[in-house]
Amino acid sequence: MTASQEAVAAAIEARRERVNEAIESDLPIGDPKRLYEASRYIVDAGGKRLRPTVSLLVAEALCGVEPLSRDYRQFPTLADGGQAGSEADNARSGSREGPEIDLMTAAAGIEVIQSFTLIHDDIMDDDDLRRGVPAVHREYDLETAILAGDTLYAKGFEFMVESGAPPEHSVRALRTLAKTCTSICEGQAMDVAFESRENVSIAEYLRMIERKTAVLYAAAASVPAILVGADDATIGALYDYGLDMGRGFQIQDDLLDLTTPSEQLGKRRGSDLIEGKRTLITLHARERGIDVEELLAEDDLDEGGDMALEGALERLEAAGSIDYARRSARSFVRSSKANLEVVPDNEAQDLLGGIAEFLVERGY
Amino acid sequence: MTASQEAVAAAIEARRERVNEAIESDLPIGDPKRLYEASRYIVDAGGKRLRPTVSLLVAEALCGVEPLSRDYRQFPTLADGGQAGSEADNARSGSREGPEIDLMTAAAGIEVIQSFTLIHDDIMDDDDLRRGVPAVHREYDLETAILAGDTLYAKGFEFMVESGAPPEHSVRALRTLAKTCTSICEGQAMDVAFESRENVSIAEYLRMIERKTAVLYAAAASVPAILVGADDATIGALYDYGLDMGRGFQIQDDLLDLTTPSEQLGKRRGSDLIEGKRTLITLHARERGIDVEELLAEDDLDEGGDMALEGALERLEAAGSIDYARRSARSFVRSSKANLEVVPDNEAQDLLGGIAEFLVERGY
Repeated sequence: MTASQEAVAAAIEARRERVNEAIESDLPIGDPKRLYEASRYIVDAGGKRLRPTVSLLVAEALCGVEPLSRDYRQFPTLADGGQAGSEADNARSGSREGPEIDLMTAAAGIEVIQSFTLIHDDIMDDDDLRRGVPAVHREYDLETAILAGDTLYAKGFEFMVESGAPPEHSVRALRTLAKTCTSICEGQAMDVAFESRENVSIAEYLRMIERKTAVLYAAAASVPAILVGADDATIGALYDYGLDMGRGFQIQDDLLDLTTPSEQLGKRRGSDLIEGKRTLITLHARERGIDVEELLAEDDLDEGGDMALEGALERLEAAGSIDYARRSARSFVRSSKANLEVVPDNEAQDLLGGIAEFLVERGY
Repeated sequence: MTASQEAVAAAIEARRERVNEAIESDLPIGDPKRLYEASRYIVDAGGKRLRPTVSLLVAEALCGVEPLSRDYRQFPTLADGGQAGSEADNARSGSREGPEIDLMTAAAGIEVIQSFTLIHDDIMDDDDLRRGVPAVHREYDLETAILAGDTLYAKGFEFMVESGAPPEHSVRALRTLAKTCTSICEGQAMDVAFESRENVSIAEYLRMIERKTAVLYAAAASVPAILVGADDATIGALYDYGLDMGRGFQIQDDLLDLTTPSEQLGKRRGSDLIEGKRTLITLHARERGIDVEELLAEDDLDEGGDMALEGALERLEAAGSIDYARRSARSFVRSSKANLEVVPDNEAQDLLGGIAEFLVERGY
């Protein structure tokens, strides 16, 4: 059963607060102060903490823990063999859980890595705004933004290393995190390269978003499974759950970039179109013979602003490109959710299904 | 006994070749090709591989292995308890070594992290040359240089995670690496901030180079000790050996920046002075009443080049600042070598002492 979108929104909000508390306590303003303030700048500016929320829910689902009932700093793990009973079952049979872990530090580590990528991506894309505030290289400067990203990069690994999970699980989680970071760099490099390439295929676009965006959702979903001691099949299925969810998320992000007012988006509406980013929408439109480069000129935006964007949007809608992207995002979410069969059927599992849907239904 | 500088040079050269082979095989040109080519660009342009050489020698010394006699990919570890006998002793008594590890991947991981910092530092310092070739942001572009650094950053952790050491040792090594990276960012932030600060004390400078430079030598020396299963006292002493060696190395680097011809240096001679970097030399000179900002004007360099630098150098020599820095570097090396008492007295240990001396005696 998939949780209602109201229940999902409440689940995200509750975990967002916990994640923010963890970051507040574990990523204090150290020395040099300016470096740490810059590192915290975008983290503190907002964000729904979707990836760590997925991490926390995965562990709750796998360990059969009632959502929000346990301290994430002392979270149970699975007994040897990777099978979860209900907590009541375990109490009755006297069966032992594994050692408790600091699940929160791992979840926050994923968010911190995400924040590093935002800071460096904004430099590369020369974006001015993020989460409604100036990008770090605008609020501070280029040097500080590079270093703030590099600092969060290290902190992500520092956080992940401190989960207190059995060492063989920790090493595996750290391997996943390191490979994920490599993949994100590859994806971002593809994204940048696509801007100056004439022909990009939809298959290439999908490979790009897999690396740039989806692998971090895959890590967010599989790392907690690794840390609590789930079996390989479960870890693999959760990885795939995250991967398809992340693909759907990125396509929805591309849609929102076109359709959401700048104030709500926290960055300039239509920036993908202005920067010449390839998206599923524009690739589809191009296949339908639309001259995407001509859809929106920089001049239009200086004068007309949203009017010009509305015109571009109408043409993309008429070509069926908006609908195509929406259907594609929803299809990825269906395929994502199918992987949840390996997870015990409980409230947290319902929420995991609901979050996958939320990612492609959200308005911002 | 400290090895002769000829023996040290040969030891570095032999290990440099092995490290280069490892990087060639483990950091192939992947996809996207341009990203990986940019990532390899500075790595392939040269470098003495001093840090991984230290790593390899530490393990050889601790495990009582004759230098270069073992495959670094299948390197012995210490039996439980962290005591090394000679190989002959072990064979006689039939005592078991621990499991073999891939020491080379850990050593190469340290070098790859070092390379990431070079690429990002060159962006921040707006340096044009590195190792005799254009800096990555000059040869490629800013975006590619940021991403190439980020890619090597991830690869450093990927390499470190694959040593095959017992998981509890791997986790500890990864913790050291992550904390080291955080510290390097803090040090680089201090270095950048010092450029625009009026008064920087020698104590502040020493804290800066500890973080920016010395901690990576400390990691290079302590991580192999962790991985082969040395005891805490040994790991701690080797960390301190690396830390003081790294301090001496950075001070010598500052000296070489002033005294070595650009061709040999692989970057513009005097760039620290031009960029207003604080060094032990200029901080000492300032204490002696020299107006360091006036020592070298950009105009002088455009016209006179090395002549202007020679003039600045003469004034720094007359003030005793060059001699002060040299004595300071040598003092750190003495203190570094004192830590080697914890290491078995063998050929590799002699070389470790010799390398510490090499770092402050080298001409480039």
